[in-house]
Amino acid sequence: MDKKLFTPGPLTTSLPVKQAMLRDVGSRDKEFMETVRFIRRKLVDIADPGQSGKFTSIILPGSGTYAIESVFANVIGNAKCKALILSNGAYGDRMAAICKQANYSYDHLKFPENDYLPLDKIKVHLQTHGQSYSLVSFVHSETSSGVINPLEELSSLIKQYTGAYLFIDAMSSFGAVPINMSTTNIDFLVSSANKCLEGVPGFSYIICQIEALQACKGRCLSLSFDLNEQWHGLEVNGQFRFTPPTHALLAFKRALIEYDEEGGLEGRKSRYMNNCDIIKSGMKQFGFQQFLDEKTHHGYIITSFNYPNDSNFEFNKFYALLSDRGHVLYPGKVLSANCFRIGNVGRLYADDCQNMLKDVEKVLVEMGVTMERRQDG
Amino acid sequence: MDKKLFTPGPLTTSLPVKQAMLRDVGSRDKEFMETVRFIRRKLVDIADPGQSGKFTSIILPGSGTYAIESVFANVIGNAKCKALILSNGAYGDRMAAICKQANYSYDHLKFPENDYLPLDKIKVHLQTHGQSYSLVSFVHSETSSGVINPLEELSSLIKQYTGAYLFIDAMSSFGAVPINMSTTNIDFLVSSANKCLEGVPGFSYIICQIEALQACKGRCLSLSFDLNEQWHGLEVNGQFRFTPPTHALLAFKRALIEYDEEGGLEGRKSRYMNNCDIIKSGMKQFGFQQFLDEKTHHGYIITSFNYPNDSNFEFNKFYALLSDRGHVLYPGKVLSANCFRIGNVGRLYADDCQNMLKDVEKVLVEMGVTMERRQDG
Repeated sequence: MDKKLFTPGPLTTSLPVKQAMLRDVGSRDKEFMETVRFIRRKLVDIADPGQSGKFTSIILPGSGTYAIESVFANVIGNAKCKALILSNGAYGDRMAAICKQANYSYDHLKFPENDYLPLDKIKVHLQTHGQSYSLVSFVHSETSSGVINPLEELSSLIKQYTGAYLFIDAMSSFGAVPINMSTTNIDFLVSSANKCLEGVPGFSYIICQIEALQACKGRCLSLSFDLNEQWHGLEVNGQFRFTPPTHALLAFKRALIEYDEEGGLEGRKSRYMNNCDIIKSGMKQFGFQQFLDEKTHHGYIITSFNYPNDSNFEFNKFYALLSDRGHVLYPGKVLSANCFRIGNVGRLYADDCQNMLKDVEKVLVEMGVTMERRQDG
Repeated sequence: MDKKLFTPGPLTTSLPVKQAMLRDVGSRDKEFMETVRFIRRKLVDIADPGQSGKFTSIILPGSGTYAIESVFANVIGNAKCKALILSNGAYGDRMAAICKQANYSYDHLKFPENDYLPLDKIKVHLQTHGQSYSLVSFVHSETSSGVINPLEELSSLIKQYTGAYLFIDAMSSFGAVPINMSTTNIDFLVSSANKCLEGVPGFSYIICQIEALQACKGRCLSLSFDLNEQWHGLEVNGQFRFTPPTHALLAFKRALIEYDEEGGLEGRKSRYMNNCDIIKSGMKQFGFQQFLDEKTHHGYIITSFNYPNDSNFEFNKFYALLSDRGHVLYPGKVLSANCFRIGNVGRLYADDCQNMLKDVEKVLVEMGVTMERRQDG
């Protein structure tokens, strides 16, 4: 029995999802092309529940970061235009790192990690500078802290004050946190197979407005990341330009079927919220404090906890002892504080969360960590 | 039972290789990091049999083309230097397409697809222009035709007339065709998980001289493809910068164990040569002609066959009928002639090749294709 992964991915997946990989299919074979079509259609259905018909999806082999980079490479690329990156965590900062390395023209507004992206400050900035941007981007669910940024309010501001394309990193939210790309005017959205849709890692995907995609044709300096070309291949004959991760795609098809069986977004969201509630309240009872203010922040994908103020607590030991007992947590990613994170996504149920908490309690005793235990809500 | 894949990849893999994917491991977990170390060490052992200690390996999630692009992006990138691409097929041409799209400075010497890269002409070019290049690249085994280019002779010429780094696309040869990176002065070599080492698709790898890699630090304009950064992460703590395809890597570890069990390069080569001989002689008996001159070309990875001169032969039908019988061939990639290809790599044995040939015969009868049958060698 594998350890349960309380991480932001790779995640624990269902056995049937993994079993779907016990096959070798040709990447130009009819069955595989049908699988790809099924996946691409389903991704658009989730992103555009009103079925506006304006969107398409593109599968890009490799890590999620590739997909992020591909959007900048396709929208900015060799065009003389500028991006605005709004960040309140490590993944927002990574967008800026991508633009910096590529010598793209960009502004990076960096905000505190322990709060939402601030609408007031962003509004002030956009009022003056909004028209200078061709692309505005931010992370929907900042996996580094767990904060879920206010998508609708941000998108309204950006629409009001800029003529820019809106690009959302929905890596750890897509499929479990409601997103309507049409009503929130999102042009490009990126996520990955091994997040809330519970596939195995191997590819990421871009969902985008077809018009926006086509308007950017010819800008990308990377053959591998050229989204118009990738899209063209998939549209024309259902084939990838370059060898795709066939096994990961077979697994993803199965994961999408299980997603529907669970009740789609509502079902998944409800299980994740329940997992997250169990973990937050259990950890609180042990005396752990959340990095985010729990009264105002209600993310339900991953939770950051401050290290307890006890010299007997050493994260690496805590991690190793819990890992030995079959639960894999995740080190912190926020830069401003000593934190660790507990994810609650993937094929995890209430029982898994409760078992993990029981072992957290045992490990704290074993380490001699004492905290003021709290029973209040 | 899946169809047998007589393609250049994805390939038929062993059941234990696929079964190794029935697990979810954390990408920062000790066991996984040990798997990555095992793989990286083994790749260097295969590439540098004399164990010179000068080489390292870097795993890059995604398609093999990414790894090709990454080498150009790291050696050329923002440096004012020029590449020479020697090509005699579609994969060599793709290198040029990568450089063209990226606006890199490069020369592309394009030679006929039905022969080896010509040493005499290349020598003449290098005598005059050799010193202007910082990188010279070519494809070792041109998967588009099946020709295996003369590595040692080409590398000697390049060493004699240039001070350039030598970059080899060994996508479909590495592990089955002998390559000694140290004695042939190869600086960068690229291959992919789902080729002769018989893993599943999901990542590619770069094996390179550590000195050459380090000398190129700072040139790459892509965060995702920055090989120095990718290497640094893997070296420092065994971790990937971005989520790796954990399942494909578990499968690859198992594939490497099976590689050793088969006798390493010699064992694999001998099985592939035998497969290829069976296919070539069987197809010849049916009257098919090879695209390459069979007297001079002895590649044993994939074979291109000309369409027969019979109006009843239609490749799509031939392909579909064989696919229905459980054998997946591959459409042609050479541009200069009507060809199709039969690969003989992956977990295929003599029996598989013979079964495929029996069905080719039946399909030809079914299609009413008649060719002059030949019994001679």
